[in-house]
Amino acid sequence: MSLTLEAILEANRRYVESFGEKRNLSMPPARRFAILTCMDARLDPSKFAGLQEGDAHVVRNAGGRASEDAIRSLVISYKLLGTREWFVIHHTDCGMETFSDEIMRGLLAKSLDPAVLEADGWHDRGSGPGSSEAQYIDWLTIRNQEESVVEDVQRLRRHPLVPPWVPIRGFLYDVRSGALRPVTAADSVGMAK
Amino acid sequence: MSLTLEAILEANRRYVESFGEKRNLSMPPARRFAILTCMDARLDPSKFAGLQEGDAHVVRNAGGRASEDAIRSLVISYKLLGTREWFVIHHTDCGMETFSDEIMRGLLAKSLDPAVLEADGWHDRGSGPGSSEAQYIDWLTIRNQEESVVEDVQRLRRHPLVPPWVPIRGFLYDVRSGALRPVTAADSVGMAK
Repeated sequence: MSLTLEAILEANRRYVESFGEKRNLSMPPARRFAILTCMDARLDPSKFAGLQEGDAHVVRNAGGRASEDAIRSLVISYKLLGTREWFVIHHTDCGMETFSDEIMRGLLAKSLDPAVLEADGWHDRGSGPGSSEAQYIDWLTIRNQEESVVEDVQRLRRHPLVPPWVPIRGFLYDVRSGALRPVTAADSVGMAK
Repeated sequence: MSLTLEAILEANRRYVESFGEKRNLSMPPARRFAILTCMDARLDPSKFAGLQEGDAHVVRNAGGRASEDAIRSLVISYKLLGTREWFVIHHTDCGMETFSDEIMRGLLAKSLDPAVLEADGWHDRGSGPGSSEAQYIDWLTIRNQEESVVEDVQRLRRHPLVPPWVPIRGFLYDVRSGALRPVTAADSVGMAK
């Protein structure tokens, strides 16, 4: 067992001891909203937005982008579990600003080259296409923080599976202060009514 | 401004006041691991796994599934930001067990029918294909909790963009106790070496 895993399980044992009434929480989010934000380690949505267990759905990916998968999640959140308001939160100093699709493809082509892997003693990578797979992925990098928030709110508002009446607000989280700043330019885009 | 938004911003103001040394956190996760888990409101990974801000990447979607987008995020996490161990955590009483692709498509077809929307005063839904879009989405529902963990760990281990040496462990989180239980059946699948 890795030290990381041991530390997680030890922390979990302490959490279980104080779990108490949380055992009675029900599935639909009590405060009926969902947050879409970045996987960044510095972001803790429950702390920066004041969430208790049971309050709200939290969807996270690299960049907090409105990917197909984020849309799948948010539509389920609305349609099956009753959330009625969504918040898209990107942040300053995001890793997604530090590279391009080309850089990512180059990095992966080098480190996952089948010949390199085999020389290093790694076999049985299945029937996958190897590192060339990286060519087919849109890594959803970010060039401008504010624009990426506007784009993602816009994409959600205009998506055919998103009910036009769901309020969607955009924010930037400042990793140097912990503050949420509304991106007001996102408020007017793609309004249905 | 909605009451929900006001409450979030008020909680955020309190967080900012006590932000302190967190302003100095750096981008790469200090504890060099990533968690993939469900968006479920009852799950707070920072609490159930003992994470401080800056410790670990957290990727979340409906079900905690190893979707293309989760793989995009985890590959970025590994390759650009140095995580070296991944944890896939599904949970008991998951919303993704409560419906099927067919049910979801039916629900959306009914509520997003263009005629229904128009009668209700909603226009300008762009040029999207309307509710029929739901036919083309794999909603990644779950039939068996343990099997879905094994499947997702397996998918990650065998994916051509995932380095074969990344340890990936599977867990089920019990929403009635807060406990993490290792899914040992996921340990042996698709091991590269």
